[in-house]
Amino acid sequence: MEKPAAPRAVVFDAYGTLFDVYSVGLLAEQLFPGKGDALAVLWRDKQIEYTRLVSMSGRYKPFWDLTRAGLRFAAERLKLNLTSQAEDRLMNQYRHLSAFPENIEVLRELKSRGIPTAILSNGDPEMLAVAVKSAGFTELLDHVLSVDAVRKYKTDPAAYALAPQALKLSAKQILFVSSNGWDAIGATWHGFTTLWVNRHGLPLERLDTEPTRIGTSLRDVLSFF
Amino acid sequence: MEKPAAPRAVVFDAYGTLFDVYSVGLLAEQLFPGKGDALAVLWRDKQIEYTRLVSMSGRYKPFWDLTRAGLRFAAERLKLNLTSQAEDRLMNQYRHLSAFPENIEVLRELKSRGIPTAILSNGDPEMLAVAVKSAGFTELLDHVLSVDAVRKYKTDPAAYALAPQALKLSAKQILFVSSNGWDAIGATWHGFTTLWVNRHGLPLERLDTEPTRIGTSLRDVLSFF
Repeated sequence: MEKPAAPRAVVFDAYGTLFDVYSVGLLAEQLFPGKGDALAVLWRDKQIEYTRLVSMSGRYKPFWDLTRAGLRFAAERLKLNLTSQAEDRLMNQYRHLSAFPENIEVLRELKSRGIPTAILSNGDPEMLAVAVKSAGFTELLDHVLSVDAVRKYKTDPAAYALAPQALKLSAKQILFVSSNGWDAIGATWHGFTTLWVNRHGLPLERLDTEPTRIGTSLRDVLSFF
Repeated sequence: MEKPAAPRAVVFDAYGTLFDVYSVGLLAEQLFPGKGDALAVLWRDKQIEYTRLVSMSGRYKPFWDLTRAGLRFAAERLKLNLTSQAEDRLMNQYRHLSAFPENIEVLRELKSRGIPTAILSNGDPEMLAVAVKSAGFTELLDHVLSVDAVRKYKTDPAAYALAPQALKLSAKQILFVSSNGWDAIGATWHGFTTLWVNRHGLPLERLDTEPTRIGTSLRDVLSFF
């Protein structure tokens, strides 16, 4: 069997993949002792659910607004008294999420090999700009692509189409990397070479599709080269 | 203020609204003691998540298949040993969900008043036919509409459009009834008069939209007439 050609560029999902969305759990736990994890998980679930509902219905709203809406729902559902001060602190934390520790060396390695890199994210441009800058990724990424440009969230084909368009490559020539199983599958459906970075040891989504490879950290990106 | 005209027809969501999707929890608890509720909830969440992922991606699969896929994922996620026998029993239970007890009298009352009624559901036609028959609703419904006809799940506009088309009424003239908050909001977005039957006392989804009314049982349908 012929060895498949190495990808010509790498596109990363942002939230969950480069930036640790559950890192807000620490602050959440300070604010709501014993409920921090539950809040972080439900917040994330609702945020993602809302992206899908508005996208399917042709009612796009920016990710920042849906993130806040998800937080408010999650707090109410868990019967937590979310003051506006607590809300602002959590949202501010979300704006400055930690990056996973191995990421910067992987981005540097790709840069040193001359491989173009990009983010393709549900995040809106302002959120992404702050997160990329905070993490020190500015010089390491060639494109920061937000679905805001097409007002459709992943897994809509219009969202994924932004990457081949910006990189002037076919989807197959691009390695799409996500820690969100559904996102890795969505990208596979839309023709990308894919890596699912399964950071939390989750089962594969049962959607009759497998990512090209499954790994456990961003370092597994380098196995494609 | 002028009293709004009464709706000219009533369209019901099926799963969660007419049929109790958590009624599978009892069998799940027998099969997996101490884990039945967790399984029922995660199964339902995954089933719905999968409808959205395939619909957004133009990869429609029938609800029955996604229901089975959701069950398999949920069992694996919870580290339950789902034998094929247990899977078949749970799927068979899903095919014969209990109807909420007040539903039949409400459908009879609408029938006696000559108000056209329909189901508009994510369920595929075969699942719906069995559920409607088991519950004794056959003579009480004028239409049983499945999104399978358009291969798009709610909240896609094409799914909701099936009701005005079948009933030959505008969306506004139709009362759309759902116990799923996101479905009641989706229908509101698409122009229906809506009732959210909030059976579980959940917070309203934070999507800047309110259903026309919020109730607690299907009997609240009759308040519109």
